[in-house]
Parts: sequence; structure tokens; C-alpha cells
Amino acid sequence: METPGHVIDMIETAAAVTGPYANFTLTHVNDHVVRMSVMTESFYWHRHPNSDETFLVLEGELLIDIGDKTVTLTRGQMTTVPKNVPHRTRPGTARSVNLTVELTTMETERLDQPL
Amino acid sequence: METPGHVIDMIETAAAVTGPYANFTLTHVNDHVVRMSVMTESFYWHRHPNSDETFLVLEGELLIDIGDKTVTLTRGQMTTVPKNVPHRTRPGTARSVNLTVELTTMETERLDQPL
Repeated sequence: METPGHVIDMIETAAAVTGPYANFTLTHVNDHVVRMSVMTESFYWHRHPNSDETFLVLEGELLIDIGDKTVTLTRGQMTTVPKNVPHRTRPGTARSVNLTVELTTMETERLDQPL
Repeated sequence: METPGHVIDMIETAAAVTGPYANFTLTHVNDHVVRMSVMTESFYWHRHPNSDETFLVLEGELLIDIGDKTVTLTRGQMTTVPKNVPHRTRPGTARSVNLTVELTTMETERLDQPL
């Protein structure tokens, strides 16, 4: 359970990440989590067999390849990738910072190719 | 299930709300939802017997009375109110826009007083 009254500052938290990649939990919501992801390089193709995944961009631009389409998200934009759908995230700018909402026990299956 | 590739622009969505109060779903994540709340007046004391509730401020300032404490959230800040904990939200500025993450079937129990 989260501590009532505990405040998380997303701007300060993002600013404190100086490495090329980070992905960590900000808060729990029931059996779901809100995580922060900082990326400077592409991730691999994968899918989550047991969870949808919502992306919300805080800084920079995030490209999400979904099958043969690419979605471009800029700051303040969000999208949800349904469970089981192959996808790959890429920074559209030198650095991309986004939040995700997903099942705490989300599983990730790496894929060699998108489809 | 959400449509793969559907993009939600939170800034445009918030700008389109001109009334004093709105609360609506932006996207589903499994059995959870991300909702947008626009407020210009205090809400009543309440608790959610079956769900935590995460708040994330997009615009203005949000005050959350939690028991006898008040948490002030400015843009880019978030907090989670655990299930069953009495709380009341109030705008700290003329208008407050925030996101919440919660169980889709979240129940709300109105309270006469906080504790």
C-alpha cells in the first residue's frame, strides 16, 4: 500500500536520471503500477501476454511501432497498446521520458520480428 | 479493448473542457482506467472501498485533504490515496486538471465528515 500523502514529483524525478536508460515504479494502484521510463535508444520488439500498457509522454517524443504502424507521441499525448499486441518503443528525440500504466506482474515476451 | 494506435492528446482534451466540472475516461488499461478530471470547486468527502486512486496534476494546483492532512500537488506531481482512506479534492487554483488511475468498477462512498 502506498503511504497516504506521499508526493512524487515527476519533473524532479526525470531530471535526476542521467543515464541512457531507466525504468522504475513511481506508485502502485491496486494490482497495477505507474512506472517512469527514460530512453535514449530503441527497445526490442516484444509483447505482453497478460497486460495492456498505457504510455504517456512527459518529455521529448516517443515512437511506438505497433505491427506495421508507427505512432508518434509528443509531450502530453498518450496511447494504449492492448495485451498481446507486438510493439517496440523508440525515442523520437535524443531522450524520451514517459509514464506507463500496466499490471504489476506484467510479463514480457521478446520477439525476433514484429508479426 | 483500446484501438491500437489511437492517440489521446491530453492538452487539447483539457482545453476543450469549458464547463466548471468534468470527469471522463481517457483510456482503459486492463480492468483499470485513466480518467481526466477538471474542477473549479471542491468535491465532497468520500472514500473508495474497493480501489486505490492515483492523482497526477496536468494543469493548475490540486489540494487533496486526506484525513487531517492536506497534500498540495502542482503540475507534474502525483500521489496515491489508498483504498478506504477518506479524502476530498479541491482546486488550489481557479481551475485544476488532473488524471486519475483507478479500478474501472471503483465504488464511491460519500462521507459526512473526514474521519
